[in-house]
Amino acid sequence: MSADTGHNFINGARSAQGHTRLQSFDANTGEPLPGFFTEATQQEVDAAAKAAATAYPLYRAIAVGQRAAFLDAIADELDALDEAFIETVCRETALPAARIQGERARTSGQMRLFAKVLRRGDFFGARIDRALPDRQPLPRPDLRQYHIGIGPVAVFGASNFPLAFSTAGGDTAAALAAGCPVVFKAHPGHMATAERVASAIIRAAEKTEMPAGVFNMIYGGTVGAWLVQHPAIKAVGFTGSLKGGRALCDMAAARPEPIPVFAEMSSVNPVIVLPEALKERGASVAAELSASVVLGAGQFCTKPGLVIGIRSAEFDAFLDELARQVNAQPAHTMLNAGGLCNYADGLGRLREHEQIHALAGRPQEGGQAHPQLFAADAQLLIDNDPLLQHEVFGPVVIVVAVNDARQLEQALQGLQGQLTATLIAQPADLDAFAGLIPMLETKAGRLLLNGYPTGVEVCEAMVHGGPYPATSDARGSSVGTLAINRFLRPICFQNYPDNLLPDALKNANPLGIQRLVDGINTPQALGQ
Amino acid sequence: MSADTGHNFINGARSAQGHTRLQSFDANTGEPLPGFFTEATQQEVDAAAKAAATAYPLYRAIAVGQRAAFLDAIADELDALDEAFIETVCRETALPAARIQGERARTSGQMRLFAKVLRRGDFFGARIDRALPDRQPLPRPDLRQYHIGIGPVAVFGASNFPLAFSTAGGDTAAALAAGCPVVFKAHPGHMATAERVASAIIRAAEKTEMPAGVFNMIYGGTVGAWLVQHPAIKAVGFTGSLKGGRALCDMAAARPEPIPVFAEMSSVNPVIVLPEALKERGASVAAELSASVVLGAGQFCTKPGLVIGIRSAEFDAFLDELARQVNAQPAHTMLNAGGLCNYADGLGRLREHEQIHALAGRPQEGGQAHPQLFAADAQLLIDNDPLLQHEVFGPVVIVVAVNDARQLEQALQGLQGQLTATLIAQPADLDAFAGLIPMLETKAGRLLLNGYPTGVEVCEAMVHGGPYPATSDARGSSVGTLAINRFLRPICFQNYPDNLLPDALKNANPLGIQRLVDGINTPQALGQ
Repeated sequence: MSADTGHNFINGARSAQGHTRLQSFDANTGEPLPGFFTEATQQEVDAAAKAAATAYPLYRAIAVGQRAAFLDAIADELDALDEAFIETVCRETALPAARIQGERARTSGQMRLFAKVLRRGDFFGARIDRALPDRQPLPRPDLRQYHIGIGPVAVFGASNFPLAFSTAGGDTAAALAAGCPVVFKAHPGHMATAERVASAIIRAAEKTEMPAGVFNMIYGGTVGAWLVQHPAIKAVGFTGSLKGGRALCDMAAARPEPIPVFAEMSSVNPVIVLPEALKERGASVAAELSASVVLGAGQFCTKPGLVIGIRSAEFDAFLDELARQVNAQPAHTMLNAGGLCNYADGLGRLREHEQIHALAGRPQEGGQAHPQLFAADAQLLIDNDPLLQHEVFGPVVIVVAVNDARQLEQALQGLQGQLTATLIAQPADLDAFAGLIPMLETKAGRLLLNGYPTGVEVCEAMVHGGPYPATSDARGSSVGTLAINRFLRPICFQNYPDNLLPDALKNANPLGIQRLVDGINTPQALGQ
Repeated sequence: MSADTGHNFINGARSAQGHTRLQSFDANTGEPLPGFFTEATQQEVDAAAKAAATAYPLYRAIAVGQRAAFLDAIADELDALDEAFIETVCRETALPAARIQGERARTSGQMRLFAKVLRRGDFFGARIDRALPDRQPLPRPDLRQYHIGIGPVAVFGASNFPLAFSTAGGDTAAALAAGCPVVFKAHPGHMATAERVASAIIRAAEKTEMPAGVFNMIYGGTVGAWLVQHPAIKAVGFTGSLKGGRALCDMAAARPEPIPVFAEMSSVNPVIVLPEALKERGASVAAELSASVVLGAGQFCTKPGLVIGIRSAEFDAFLDELARQVNAQPAHTMLNAGGLCNYADGLGRLREHEQIHALAGRPQEGGQAHPQLFAADAQLLIDNDPLLQHEVFGPVVIVVAVNDARQLEQALQGLQGQLTATLIAQPADLDAFAGLIPMLETKAGRLLLNGYPTGVEVCEAMVHGGPYPATSDARGSSVGTLAINRFLRPICFQNYPDNLLPDALKNANPLGIQRLVDGINTPQALGQ
């Protein structure tokens, strides 16, 4: 262990001015892991934000190909992390090694995917309207638009993805790709993991000669508020609870200069099981669904938390099988003691509700989470009961039986914003219930058919977002290449000579990118 | 005058349930114009928002070509408005007929431009990642992304553009283009104009068979808060003062479901006059600049309000000429009595400041605005003095002399966010001051060279936006086709069959649009 283990990462150096020492814990045993992490002082948070602000003009001036090389170098460093690293992540999160290895590949893969986006160059959104000097009654000047990074971005790591939504995760990758330096707040649940990953990013930054301050990381609890309120920070990425995300949104909105917050928060991810599908394959749907519910101990943002079907003999049989499946599931160790505590609290609120009944699962007790199945009255959805809309993080699912197609529509109308909405349907169901699709579009960011929402592909077309409270801004995605747009803003040059324009807008199109020229999409160079 | 003149426009009908009657005034004489406008009640605001919400699923389901036809029909109706309409606008705003005719052409032109955007279809942002069933370790599902309108949009009209930033203005056009029904709050300064324009939109909606409630308009003052707080409203467009815009932002952020607000607010639009340009053409720059300052009585968001130059004999001569030009300008009638009052207040604050001195212009008195020139100490900019950053709406400009290039950079660093930043420069200046350009990029939405910021071209490449307080969200533009993006959100379909996908995502590409397919931009259809 190096001498500065547990120190904050500020401006390419390590810093530990504070006196509050934090510990990380073994998620299985609850024992503290060796070593301490020093909570950042307000001065250190200020220094980190200022380091990012100083790096911003330098970093965004770097040619886009070099920026891509930096992302590729981060990916290589992540892939090169050793077995001890994997063990550390497993100890801090109780997640199995295979999952962590897969998550590492996903994390390095998304860095490389953003590098590809940078080289393709469509993120620039380059548009050129050439001068029309002879236009009547007034000539048109030459106008050219592209996008730049919005400025330093604060990123808050998630508890449930120690790699893919954390230090070098999707928000960090999107911000760095956009040309925005990052100040990352390490999640208290996996500080040792964060340390190794931050070191990997710094190595990549040094190898590719990025400016000091392009990536900074701070430890601590209250440091988050200081960070979001710092005038140098221009946007925030967050994955976590509704309460935490909303607090950051409120803080950001109350700043002298308000800034956008992209918080991915709370979703119950409704799964609608339609009649013909239940007739055809009710038992296998029950098995697949319960597997999706308990995957990763139910600790996914996209865990299916709500299942809705129309009352019928087949639906009853499906519920019986689902109950059997849930009862057959073993208990799971959660990411940390706080998570288990929240899970128990959430279950308690469900049990206390008069119109919600337990259908399966052992009583919650001990150090592990027991999978649970509840049934709720359809009227609760129609009446927008908050309990049914509130995500309970862990291996629990609630089923709602509606009387008919009309009540199904009413129940779905009552839903708040969601990350995902899933139909389990045969072709005949889709004919009968086609009207549900446009309605689900207004409720969710991703619509699935005959699949399960856990497992979020990192690609160009993914949307991991959705209306509030799924996220704080339905116009963004925190997974996939669209995520870069959250951290970009447009600039227009009027009558600038070619040599002073950015490469993306030069006549010769030296980057060879697709541009909108006088209203036509083309990769062609312009005549002088 | 028809029987329901002055009634609110709700769900395709007219409504006047309230008892508060408002009047419009002749901007030149201050005399009330004939007729009354009935302030909407809270029930009517609720009805308007609900009408928009009811229209939303119907409107967004309409084929994009028909939506384009609706925009074209609005443009035709605007162009067909008679001379009496032009006279009404002139009376309500004291703007000359030629300006209003030009503004009408701009307003109908931007409707037609958005229709073109709809037909081109790139606003869909269509992306397709095809299934990879044989991928290891896990197959990739078929994933397809496009964008839909975010939901009903509340639009607040601007005082200074009775047509182009009002009832059928840029925000309304962008929202309708995006597939979002609109509830428009008429500006109290030109309610008769709003009435004629709203009627034109309704005629177009009826002719093209749009759903009732696609466009609604309400009169009144306090109605704005009810509108922004209404749960059916999903985004807000606003053009006006910093105080008004910020109040709406705060209100929207405090809702149970926060919504995005795109407020275009306050900008002093710095013009930096560089040494060689002053040597070469100082006198003509002074003449052009003063013309830009007084254009439209200085009532443009992009009025150059701050001029910065390096002390020299040429700069002194430029200031003398600028003072002569400002003294030679006639007084101007402002849009309304409130505007004149605010102008006088703003001038008063400048006069009271110890480090700001009047250089030219007659004392402000009477019923018209007198053009004014002030000089401020450079240290005020460096120290971020709020008075120098605060837009004074009207024909006033402040000059700041800096000692040298270094102080120029310091002064510019002190600037808040701006809609525009202008360099007046010879090629030799651009060599010497090239470092200013990347810095100005971080301050403004549009960078001009040897032009003046008034006159905002409506086109693909325009950015009318910028960091706070120029706007509430630097990632948007309220002029040009990029404005549509503010009101769109992404949706992803996973494993949907071709027949259930929207046209934009179908294999055959029936819209013939550009799409990102497996990471490659192409208009090609996909094999089944």
